[in-house]
Amino acid sequence: MSAGFTTVKALLFDMFGTVVDWRESVSAEVSTHLGDYLPGADPRDFADLWRAEYQPSMERVRNGSRPFERLDVLHRENLMTVLDRLGVNSEAVPPQVLDELNLAWHRLDPWPDSVSGLTRLKERFIIAPLSNANVRLALDVAKAAQLPWDAILGAEVAGAYKPDPAAYLRTVEILGLVPDQVAMVAAHNSDLAAAESVGLRTAFVVRPTEYGPGQTTDLSAEGDWDVVAEDVEDLADQLCR
Amino acid sequence: MSAGFTTVKALLFDMFGTVVDWRESVSAEVSTHLGDYLPGADPRDFADLWRAEYQPSMERVRNGSRPFERLDVLHRENLMTVLDRLGVNSEAVPPQVLDELNLAWHRLDPWPDSVSGLTRLKERFIIAPLSNANVRLALDVAKAAQLPWDAILGAEVAGAYKPDPAAYLRTVEILGLVPDQVAMVAAHNSDLAAAESVGLRTAFVVRPTEYGPGQTTDLSAEGDWDVVAEDVEDLADQLCR
Repeated sequence: MSAGFTTVKALLFDMFGTVVDWRESVSAEVSTHLGDYLPGADPRDFADLWRAEYQPSMERVRNGSRPFERLDVLHRENLMTVLDRLGVNSEAVPPQVLDELNLAWHRLDPWPDSVSGLTRLKERFIIAPLSNANVRLALDVAKAAQLPWDAILGAEVAGAYKPDPAAYLRTVEILGLVPDQVAMVAAHNSDLAAAESVGLRTAFVVRPTEYGPGQTTDLSAEGDWDVVAEDVEDLADQLCR
Repeated sequence: MSAGFTTVKALLFDMFGTVVDWRESVSAEVSTHLGDYLPGADPRDFADLWRAEYQPSMERVRNGSRPFERLDVLHRENLMTVLDRLGVNSEAVPPQVLDELNLAWHRLDPWPDSVSGLTRLKERFIIAPLSNANVRLALDVAKAAQLPWDAILGAEVAGAYKPDPAAYLRTVEILGLVPDQVAMVAAHNSDLAAAESVGLRTAFVVRPTEYGPGQTTDLSAEGDWDVVAEDVEDLADQLCR
């Protein structure tokens, strides 16, 4: 095990992209729910556009221009933004269709190694998501996918969105731990850089197709992370020896 | 199933006394850790005295005379109060012994029907503790006892102690539900009365020996609760038919 991990008692996981494959799951639901309203549109492009609104919408909370609002609400607003950008009259789509599509984010499928890897890691560590997802979203994903979390933590419990330092530090405090007893596990270098800057340990899990076959970002570790793993099973191989 | 339960999607459980047997677990640790310092004292009496400080300590948060403080901190303060009341010089006991004893509340054993009953109920409902325990306490109990919660909710996440209405209503809101979609499950009539007063459904689980063989309170349902069950297995029998 990495020397930096000898103090670690809890692993906190980024969820979207690290544990679950949001792009394939969301685009499948875009096909199902919007096929009649967006003929000819590529559902993966739609999923990418929707995801592209994710950081800007949280940034308005992080910079104080609006109070904390759970991700379900931001996702629903961002859906309207994307429809508008594509020139779709959103009033032509029944609101209940959009509400149901918004719940696609509650039904994301895990990567094939996530459940088995987490199950092994749970034997040795406290495991929880530290996601920008709200509690109910993460709970629904975990219940359907049988992700064996010890607790559902994250932005809503902390009252702050990553990479705001408060998102990491309040979660560490809720666990009754200090930063070097906690490791952030993520497929995104920026998440790990933010966690490291406030004293957490770091583990990079590469997810080279999170954004599809043409992905150009986060293909490799860009920092001196404590652990670099091919997937969650490999992380368990390295940490549970 | 009770007519009142047709709308229910989530079951929230009181933990101390309802899911776990705090008295036997804590008194065993009192014997272990304080035996040398309290010769002749009855460890069950000590556990009862410690528990007796629980409501008064939370009341100081509920009535606004101090800000919200997690239960681990209140338990540690209450331990000093009990030692003082018993005439024990708390300075004669090493602080690390008291810190370790305080963690007895993180190692409570479940009643024999809890894990099997919860496992069945989880198939049909979202299940989570709505306890005055802080997150780490409830997490440690769940991890050791293998309580299959979908999430760890409760006072620390809500920022309010039961029976403050905010403890129930904020938890319902975090679940993205409305009160009649949520049922409170407890062995304490007062907890159910508070939950009912803000619109939740109610299930009473009788625990006639929570306070030992001479228990005089909460031996039967004292309100018109939606469900009354002998234990958590019986609750599953009634709700999962």
